[in-house]
Amino acid sequence: MSRPFEELVAKVKNFEMKKVSVAVAQDSAVIEAVRMAKDRGIATAILVGDEDKIKAVAASINTDISDFEIVDVKDDIEASLTAVKLVRDGVADMYMKGLLQTKDFLKSVLNKEVGLRTGSALSHVCVFDVKGWDHLMFLTDVAFIPYPTLEDKKAMIENVLPITSACGVENPKVAPLAAVEVVNPKMPCTVEAAELTRMNKEGELTGCIVDGPLSLDLAIEPEAAMHKGATDRAIQGDADVLLFPDIHAGNLVYKAMVHTADVINGNMLTGTKAPVILTSRSDSAEVKVNSLALGALVAEYQKNNQ
Amino acid sequence: MSRPFEELVAKVKNFEMKKVSVAVAQDSAVIEAVRMAKDRGIATAILVGDEDKIKAVAASINTDISDFEIVDVKDDIEASLTAVKLVRDGVADMYMKGLLQTKDFLKSVLNKEVGLRTGSALSHVCVFDVKGWDHLMFLTDVAFIPYPTLEDKKAMIENVLPITSACGVENPKVAPLAAVEVVNPKMPCTVEAAELTRMNKEGELTGCIVDGPLSLDLAIEPEAAMHKGATDRAIQGDADVLLFPDIHAGNLVYKAMVHTADVINGNMLTGTKAPVILTSRSDSAEVKVNSLALGALVAEYQKNNQ
Repeated sequence: MSRPFEELVAKVKNFEMKKVSVAVAQDSAVIEAVRMAKDRGIATAILVGDEDKIKAVAASINTDISDFEIVDVKDDIEASLTAVKLVRDGVADMYMKGLLQTKDFLKSVLNKEVGLRTGSALSHVCVFDVKGWDHLMFLTDVAFIPYPTLEDKKAMIENVLPITSACGVENPKVAPLAAVEVVNPKMPCTVEAAELTRMNKEGELTGCIVDGPLSLDLAIEPEAAMHKGATDRAIQGDADVLLFPDIHAGNLVYKAMVHTADVINGNMLTGTKAPVILTSRSDSAEVKVNSLALGALVAEYQKNNQ
Repeated sequence: MSRPFEELVAKVKNFEMKKVSVAVAQDSAVIEAVRMAKDRGIATAILVGDEDKIKAVAASINTDISDFEIVDVKDDIEASLTAVKLVRDGVADMYMKGLLQTKDFLKSVLNKEVGLRTGSALSHVCVFDVKGWDHLMFLTDVAFIPYPTLEDKKAMIENVLPITSACGVENPKVAPLAAVEVVNPKMPCTVEAAELTRMNKEGELTGCIVDGPLSLDLAIEPEAAMHKGATDRAIQGDADVLLFPDIHAGNLVYKAMVHTADVINGNMLTGTKAPVILTSRSDSAEVKVNSLALGALVAEYQKNNQ
C-alpha cells in the first residue's frame, strides 16, 4: 500500500508541471533536488544566479541542467529579487532558497515591490507521513517563528489551512500542544491554547476544529485519549495539525521524529502569495524534493481557489 | 543481541533484591507493576495504604500479593508519610507513587522529618533505549520542572550524574538543546546553554562534558555534525544526556519518541536521598517495571558510593 505522502506526490503528476524559481542557484544540494524533482515530473526550475558558477556546480556533481532556464545575475541580493519577481509576476509558481543567507532570502520574500507578502505573518509548515500512521500530520511551526504570540498562533493556524486543503484534509483538527492537557495559569502556552479554542468555538477562527491545550499522546493516540478518560474532547488522538508552543519544542520534536521514526516529509513557508521553499542544510535531497512536490500541490490549489 | 536497557535489567538481578515502598498502594496499575517486577527478580514491595482496598484491587485483577508486606494506613496523607519514612529509615530502597495526587506525593517526598529531601532541586530523568541506537540516552526534564532557571539546569545536570554512573556511563556528554546551535540573545535558552558550557569548562560543573546550545541533529546524529561542519565541537552526534529548555519541549519530544519509535524506557525523580518513582497514568506497565529496575540500579549505586 502506498503511503499518504506518496499519494500526494502522485497527485502532482496529474496537473501541468509547476515551475520553481531558485534564488542564487549555485548550490549543489539545490541543483541535485531540482534535477530529481524534474526527473520525477514534480516541477521544473528557473535557476537565477551567477551562470558560470551554476554551470560549474552542476558539472562538479555530474548533473545535466541543460533543460533548465538560467537567468544570469551575479549579485546575490539582486538575484534573489529577480527570482522572487518571477513568482510575483506569475512566470514561476513557487520560490526556493539557494546559496544565500536566510535573512537575505526572507528580505526578498517580504520585499514590497517584488516580494510575496500578503499582510499575514509568515509561518513554517511541515507535512509529515509517519510509517504506521494512516494520515498526514501537519506541524507548525518548527523553524520560523521563535516565540509566537497569541496573534501569531492564530495566523499560524490560518496559514496552515490552504496547505491542509491542498493535501485533501478539510476542516482539520488542530491541537495546540503543551506538556499538559489542562489550563495552568503558570504555563502561558496552555492559556493561549484555551484562548485559540475559544476563538474557534465563537467563530473568530474558522475552517478548522481547535482543541487545546493537549498533550501529544492525547493529540495523536486514540488509546491514550480513552485511557485518560478524555472522551468529551473534540480531539481524541485524531489531530491533523500539531501547533507547537515555541520553536524549540517544535524543532526538537521535528528532529526527534526525523531521526528516530520512519518519516517522509516536506516543508514550506506559508502566509505568502505563493509557496516558499526554505529548506535547511541538514535536510536531505528527498526532503527538498518532497518540499517541491508540496509546493506544487499548494500552488495548484491556490490557482484553483483564488 | 540484547538491547542496552535489557542489559541494565540483567544487572539488577546480580545484587540482592531491592524493596520499593508504595504510597497509597490501592492502585491496579501499580499493583500489576510491582507484581511483574517481583516475578522478574527486579524488586519486591511494601504496600502502604488501606489494606482492605489493596486486597480488593489485587483480587479484581487476579493478582497474588500474598508475598508482599502490607502496612495498613487508611488516611492517604498519613499513608504517604509512613511509606516515605520506610525509605528514609532504610527499610525500603526506593519510593513509588500509588493512588494519590502528585502534589500530595511530592509533599511527602519533601517532608522535612520523614522525606527524602537533600537540599538539591528535584528533577526528572528518563532513560531511553531507542531501537537502532547502540547506547542509552538520558532525557531531563520531560515531566517535573516547568521552566527551569539557569540554576535549575545546573541542578538537573548534577542530578543526572548518579543515574548515568549507575547505568555505566561515566563522564557523560550533556547537550543543552535548542532549535539552533548558536547563541542568540533573543533566545534565552541558548544563552543559558552557553553559560552551562562555560561553567563546565571552568570547573564549576564537573563529572561531565557540556556543549551547548545544540540542535537535536547535532546532539544525536554524527553525520549531521559532519555535514554541518561542526567538527570542532565537544559533542558531535554523541550526546548521552539531552537537557531540554523547558517542560513543553521535553515532554513533547518524550511522547513523540515513545509514540513513533521503538523505545524501551524507565523514568525517575532525582535530587533525592533515594530513587523516587513517579509514573504517570499514561505510562504502560512495562514503563513502570523499567522504572523500578532503574530505581533498583540507582539505589544499589548510591549504597556503594555513599
